[in-house]
Amino acid sequence: MYQGLIKRYREWLPVTEQTPVISLFEGSTPLLPMPRLAAAISPHIALYAKFEGMNPTGSFKDRGMTLAVSHACQEGRTVLMCASTGNTSASAAAYAARAGMQCVVLIPGGKIALGKLSQAIVHGAKVLAIEGNFDEALRLVREICAEFPIALVNSVNPMRLQGQKTVAFEVVDDLGDAPDYHAMPVGNAGNITAAWMGYSEYHAAGKSASMPVMLGFQAAGAAPLVHGKPVLQPETVATAIRIGNPASWQGAVRAKEESGGLIDCVTDAEILEAYAMLPALEGVFAEPACAAPVAGLKKLAAQGFFNKPCSVVVTLTGHGLKDPDTAMQSAASPLVAVAASRDAVLQAMGFCA
Amino acid sequence: MYQGLIKRYREWLPVTEQTPVISLFEGSTPLLPMPRLAAAISPHIALYAKFEGMNPTGSFKDRGMTLAVSHACQEGRTVLMCASTGNTSASAAAYAARAGMQCVVLIPGGKIALGKLSQAIVHGAKVLAIEGNFDEALRLVREICAEFPIALVNSVNPMRLQGQKTVAFEVVDDLGDAPDYHAMPVGNAGNITAAWMGYSEYHAAGKSASMPVMLGFQAAGAAPLVHGKPVLQPETVATAIRIGNPASWQGAVRAKEESGGLIDCVTDAEILEAYAMLPALEGVFAEPACAAPVAGLKKLAAQGFFNKPCSVVVTLTGHGLKDPDTAMQSAASPLVAVAASRDAVLQAMGFCA
Repeated sequence: MYQGLIKRYREWLPVTEQTPVISLFEGSTPLLPMPRLAAAISPHIALYAKFEGMNPTGSFKDRGMTLAVSHACQEGRTVLMCASTGNTSASAAAYAARAGMQCVVLIPGGKIALGKLSQAIVHGAKVLAIEGNFDEALRLVREICAEFPIALVNSVNPMRLQGQKTVAFEVVDDLGDAPDYHAMPVGNAGNITAAWMGYSEYHAAGKSASMPVMLGFQAAGAAPLVHGKPVLQPETVATAIRIGNPASWQGAVRAKEESGGLIDCVTDAEILEAYAMLPALEGVFAEPACAAPVAGLKKLAAQGFFNKPCSVVVTLTGHGLKDPDTAMQSAASPLVAVAASRDAVLQAMGFCA
Repeated sequence: MYQGLIKRYREWLPVTEQTPVISLFEGSTPLLPMPRLAAAISPHIALYAKFEGMNPTGSFKDRGMTLAVSHACQEGRTVLMCASTGNTSASAAAYAARAGMQCVVLIPGGKIALGKLSQAIVHGAKVLAIEGNFDEALRLVREICAEFPIALVNSVNPMRLQGQKTVAFEVVDDLGDAPDYHAMPVGNAGNITAAWMGYSEYHAAGKSASMPVMLGFQAAGAAPLVHGKPVLQPETVATAIRIGNPASWQGAVRAKEESGGLIDCVTDAEILEAYAMLPALEGVFAEPACAAPVAGLKKLAAQGFFNKPCSVVVTLTGHGLKDPDTAMQSAASPLVAVAASRDAVLQAMGFCA
């Protein structure tokens, strides 16, 4: 019986027998072959989606949260706090509820996906909308957690990245080795940092023969790592990566450099195009941020990047249900109202009535 | 590497080597211990949630859909059709996309959860809103599929229940035997019919020593099985079980009678109370319909039903992200807007600034 990633990868994680395991049975997400999407990108790639939307709260954040909250519990904390564009708050609130702890979430004012907000609220978190952006929210959280005995569960908490690194273990365990490339969206940069840590540890221990080239993609309006400097007013439809000053900046640069990879950006128009391709071609509904690496792979392929057969894993960080509004706005085919009769339905289907 | 329920339970399913497997790696959902929720219900129960919201499209419907669409594909169909209150349409549309098939969905006018509708649309289904209820939509689908070479993928398609029965296999495989009780929401009644089929087959083959008592719960405003006659205008906040004339009526009655169980109903007020308990006590966010069996267990416990130690599995049919609007409306703590300053945040948290 599967019981979550701490139990599965205990020997690779900083836990002891005294650590209470706070788990919603996260991890062990599907690695789905994506043949139609691959064909639309490049004839050379064998493409797999690591669908992190299938974690309990619908995003990869649960991997780090199980470890961060278990540790906070072990340390006797009773209150958690985080800044979030949505996914972290949903995960923190859920794991806090599971542990019987309180949770305070600071979210930036303005764009936050409806689904994510509803999660933090139903799990009983106190949600404070700050008149400022993510970076300001995180600064406030750090200040308050330094002053009070509150567990900070943003990815500046090293337990978060420790849990998130397990995604690399699972990919290697499923494929039998590392893929040639691993592409993912880059916002706060914890994900690419953690995945590279996981690949590095597994490789050092002889669990994989190779390491992937890491490909990170930001949104053009929120691309500090591409421009080499923070973005004061980040803007993008992909709310999960609307971050101007990533907490794991150095980790992302290290992942790029050590793997011989790159961090590039794609426009919102490219993101929305890729966002529509995934569910229509493969039946997988991921949140807008997940479309950034898909759009990025298309962009690289058009530049001749994939010129021989290779395996590519793309992390789909969150479920599309997190953001139904963007889905409805982007939809090509709207809802059609018809009378409850055979002829009316056949006509609407384009069949002769 | 896990590759979905047809591969896992192939010998128990009506598939051949010629059946193309159309899968999104559904099934093998978590069986989560729910100690806090159990304590709030009865001192005698060991409670587990079978969290079917962790299927790829966020509901248990994916179990039946992988089999129904694989069969439709084998038979050379290129168009799928279904009537749906939401979850079936989301699943049908996703598996149609995965198979490269067209999908037509008839939904009843009025209440449909936003998340579910967004799924059908992003997966490219043609969604027709019928000026009528679910039962009228299903009647039209049956009429049209009988006339044209279109695969009907509602649960009147026997492949649907064949796939759905695997939930019982997984529960037995995880627990080592059947639980004492299995509680679930009852709408179109396919789920309780299929689960009982699965328990019966596993037991007959010696895979379990016992069989569970089946406990089905309808919403008071949509309780045809409780009243023993169809409900013409079913109404409930739990849109997934807003059905007045269940397709699997006989199967539900059989499950109840053969297992010595019951089918009861709970009010919308009881549903909304239980709906709020799950995410707040256990960190699990399920759609409103899932709260019906939780409320039902509370009701039975208050009547002295559980008077000795027993194991209870409750099926949580879909993810709460399917219906963010109901979540926001039901939320006790609304969003609080605060200035981006330490003092303002501390004050909002209830800490001295």
